[in-house]
Amino acid sequence: MDDRELLSVVTGIIGKEHTMDDCAEVPCGDQILVVTTDMLHRSTDFVEGMSTWQMGWMSAAVTLSDIASMGAEPKYLLIAVGLDGWKELAGIMQGAQDCCKRFGAMIIGGDIDRHGELTIVTTGLGLADKSRIVRRSGAHPGDLVCITGTPGQAQAYIDGYSEFRKQLFEPQPRVKEGQLLARGGASAMMDDSDGVALSLYDLLSVNECGFSLDSAKLPLPSGIPEKQACELALHGGGDYELIFTLPPHSHPVYGVSYSVIGTVTREKSVLIDGLPVEKRGYQHKWE
Amino acid sequence: MDDRELLSVVTGIIGKEHTMDDCAEVPCGDQILVVTTDMLHRSTDFVEGMSTWQMGWMSAAVTLSDIASMGAEPKYLLIAVGLDGWKELAGIMQGAQDCCKRFGAMIIGGDIDRHGELTIVTTGLGLADKSRIVRRSGAHPGDLVCITGTPGQAQAYIDGYSEFRKQLFEPQPRVKEGQLLARGGASAMMDDSDGVALSLYDLLSVNECGFSLDSAKLPLPSGIPEKQACELALHGGGDYELIFTLPPHSHPVYGVSYSVIGTVTREKSVLIDGLPVEKRGYQHKWE
Repeated sequence: MDDRELLSVVTGIIGKEHTMDDCAEVPCGDQILVVTTDMLHRSTDFVEGMSTWQMGWMSAAVTLSDIASMGAEPKYLLIAVGLDGWKELAGIMQGAQDCCKRFGAMIIGGDIDRHGELTIVTTGLGLADKSRIVRRSGAHPGDLVCITGTPGQAQAYIDGYSEFRKQLFEPQPRVKEGQLLARGGASAMMDDSDGVALSLYDLLSVNECGFSLDSAKLPLPSGIPEKQACELALHGGGDYELIFTLPPHSHPVYGVSYSVIGTVTREKSVLIDGLPVEKRGYQHKWE
Repeated sequence: MDDRELLSVVTGIIGKEHTMDDCAEVPCGDQILVVTTDMLHRSTDFVEGMSTWQMGWMSAAVTLSDIASMGAEPKYLLIAVGLDGWKELAGIMQGAQDCCKRFGAMIIGGDIDRHGELTIVTTGLGLADKSRIVRRSGAHPGDLVCITGTPGQAQAYIDGYSEFRKQLFEPQPRVKEGQLLARGGASAMMDDSDGVALSLYDLLSVNECGFSLDSAKLPLPSGIPEKQACELALHGGGDYELIFTLPPHSHPVYGVSYSVIGTVTREKSVLIDGLPVEKRGYQHKWE
């Protein structure tokens, strides 16, 4: 059983409509409030060598990235910290606070608990205009498949390329980019935190179309043999780039640096250079 | 160092204004959105003998209680679950879902993670009219000090009185009561989850007045020697009653069952029968 199978246990109880996107949506006056929650903890998310400041930064960043991927503006963050030692609290809070400040959000609440393993759960709230929100569904055949930045860098650090330490330890959510892309007409969007391949399969599951990538167009982490770099870009985890689809007439979206890496197809499949992409990336396994 | 001292580390970084109440407040159209997050985990919160359904129920209930204590209407819940075994997920989700349904809220999102210790973090969102919201501050000398239900029952179960099992395992947040009390003029309110004594000291810290209780008026768990029952009511944890202050002219608030247990005083102290109440209740200790 993997994460995505486990999710079907949840949808059986609370319904599918609330588990499709990076954020939930709630009406708020004439805007939409997007809300999302993420759990991180020491053994699986906080890599050896991270400072408490970086743990706090990362905890805020992953949640702000979910908000960015809806094209929304991050506004508020709540942070629940399960501490295995009280001395870590100040660094964690400062890191989360600095990340929020950098991207225009504010910490408005939280909870502190004692815990056998350092565990941080952040909940983010953002605002979007009704007409501007972008969801995972909405891709149309003929749209361009695009991505911000260079996927695979965070995983490259884990695989021994120490020059990518900062990409893994201090992820930069694409907050400004998300809002510009929403305004610029992106038809579907999500972040690629589980890797490009799994993200495209997630998009596949909620769209009536497929995705065909051109490997020559995929931006790759530099200084790594091409085959390995392509593997990292497709199947590595820990990046927080935006992967999105864009009608050709909306391209280019000014002010955002992104690569066109493929097209949306009528056929419901995920291909690269005409061959199926393996459905593999960052997932927990459950016994 | 205890929980309340640790909180001062947080206020030093994010400011005091966001840590004073049971919920944070966010403007939402012409209403106020209240938001709160709570972390529970197996070793400290889920008592031996609880079913997964009860763990899910309790996780939702503690957060709905925070919303109730602002006089707000619970609307939405997000739930992040760190599982030590995937088979527990269905029971937890069903318990949380049933609690939400019972009190008018809806689960709209969450996160699932693998974790060495079962950990559940719920984030609740509620709505209140601007004029109707009740905070911890707002008490005035001469107001009545009141409490819903009977405090001390949850702790009584832990101390060996098995008839109070349900009070600890399936707490009932005072959602309807909170809204009626807000409408009825309550001047300050919070829930008593850390015990009546600590709650009054929390109120003391944000009000320019004090509280004087009359032990004869304090409702006590039945079937327990009076001295022990009074200790449980004042210093026991795990209850989710509302403790609030009420101007005399607003008393009684119809439709709510509560006891008047004392008065708000000019003197900044917490007294019972004229003697200081020990500042002691449910708190983690940090080495």
